[in-house]
Amino acid sequence: MFKIPKHQVAGHQAIDGNLGPLVDDSGRFYKPLQDDERGTTELAFYQSFSSKLPHHIRGFFPVFYGTQLVEASDGSGLRPHLVLQDITSNHLNPSILDVKIGSRTWYPEASEDYIQKALEGDRLTTTVTLGFRISGLQIYESKESGYWKPVRKEVKSFSADDVRLVLRKFVSSNLEPEPDCCFASTTYGGRSGILEQLLELKAWFEDQTVYHFHSCSLLLLIDKEPVLNGTTVPFVEVKLIDFAHTVESEGVIDHNFLGGLCSFIKFVSEVLTDSKVSTIEASFN
Amino acid sequence: MFKIPKHQVAGHQAIDGNLGPLVDDSGRFYKPLQDDERGTTELAFYQSFSSKLPHHIRGFFPVFYGTQLVEASDGSGLRPHLVLQDITSNHLNPSILDVKIGSRTWYPEASEDYIQKALEGDRLTTTVTLGFRISGLQIYESKESGYWKPVRKEVKSFSADDVRLVLRKFVSSNLEPEPDCCFASTTYGGRSGILEQLLELKAWFEDQTVYHFHSCSLLLLIDKEPVLNGTTVPFVEVKLIDFAHTVESEGVIDHNFLGGLCSFIKFVSEVLTDSKVSTIEASFN
Repeated sequence: MFKIPKHQVAGHQAIDGNLGPLVDDSGRFYKPLQDDERGTTELAFYQSFSSKLPHHIRGFFPVFYGTQLVEASDGSGLRPHLVLQDITSNHLNPSILDVKIGSRTWYPEASEDYIQKALEGDRLTTTVTLGFRISGLQIYESKESGYWKPVRKEVKSFSADDVRLVLRKFVSSNLEPEPDCCFASTTYGGRSGILEQLLELKAWFEDQTVYHFHSCSLLLLIDKEPVLNGTTVPFVEVKLIDFAHTVESEGVIDHNFLGGLCSFIKFVSEVLTDSKVSTIEASFN
Repeated sequence: MFKIPKHQVAGHQAIDGNLGPLVDDSGRFYKPLQDDERGTTELAFYQSFSSKLPHHIRGFFPVFYGTQLVEASDGSGLRPHLVLQDITSNHLNPSILDVKIGSRTWYPEASEDYIQKALEGDRLTTTVTLGFRISGLQIYESKESGYWKPVRKEVKSFSADDVRLVLRKFVSSNLEPEPDCCFASTTYGGRSGILEQLLELKAWFEDQTVYHFHSCSLLLLIDKEPVLNGTTVPFVEVKLIDFAHTVESEGVIDHNFLGGLCSFIKFVSEVLTDSKVSTIEASFN
């Protein structure tokens, strides 16, 4: 009944006898509850967020179905798991981008050991310079080529230009030699496209003083299948995930998340603008 | 001809034979050019900013008149000084707030020694938690009480609640026992008030990829004198100062400054909202 998720791009994975999340056939995602404070923090978040967030923002979070004792993937026996919506279910070949938002993943309330490790990781990746880092990705190209899914080490060493290229490939049908960005206007753009959704999230972050989302990821999912099947608009989904370091905020906005989100928005809007210019140029040639 | 500025609230001061800025009677401010990279960086910024910034943003920066060899305030002889607009000239009793914007004052290009020192300062003040810290202030109360100008040590140890109180006192006529916030609607609010100006600056920071303003301050100046003299609207001024750590940005927005600015905007708008509520309540009593 429980299976290893096919489309996980970041985080601990339930392969080779390790502890990691599981999925079932009914569209649920089982995330092992960590033993330490991280588990407590994430559970507390999922138990309270829906009563604390405005209605139009709740859709940015996975549906939470409670906790359940599940046979852990590492064979250690029954263990409490968070039961969440499996965002990838119903999608045969989803392209997924996991983007950790913020120019720091540490926070004053954490242990000094955690702070030093997180700070080191922030300085070695684009977190400090761009205000976000790509944590993982898979991009579906075609039946023949399958997925482009760079290994973790490669993703960790991404430069600003690599990020720009990834954001172009993400909305392309042909990735090489030059991403065609043919899905840019229908996935990044449009009335319920990714950019509009990010702007809605941004407006909320300019005002909300409920939570500080440290080390939280923005998960972008695109399914290009509907286009191949004749529907004109591809499926897009924008979700926030990973709340093991989400703390209540005491009346201050999450300026760390907001700044990083604004930076990411700028990157996305540049791909959209460039692809519009290319389309206009192409129509003149 | 050269004098020690009367209304300096932060930074090196030309008192007791130290090196610091000077002013003259013609409304110019002479800032000693630092010997090291900081001097070079700040001079480069002032020499280039007016050609790189859009017209409506230039007013947020002091006018730059070039450099001049001036007898240094520490008696060390002639030294090159930046010649800038003296923002406090023409104001008899200005209230001034110097707010260092950003949740970090360090940046990857700096030396490891600078990074560690700056990080320590950021963690000890509200920089990390609020995304900004008050670096200095003076608030004019009345002829009798004069100024409230807490010493540097006190300012450095400000908590979030202290910051809230300062922002209320800043726009008050009576500071004790409870700030009356009687100037809130005419200084923070209004069409060319501080909040509107900060929002204009924010809109620019959401888009600009020219500079990253590390360790830069927002200087807010209020002159309540016009009100006392029968003019209804007090004078307000919003300027950016201190560019010794401003670097060119390579196509990325200054998410660190932007996040901190948004946090500061939230603090200011809360004072404005609260003061409106108080006014309505008062009119019902």
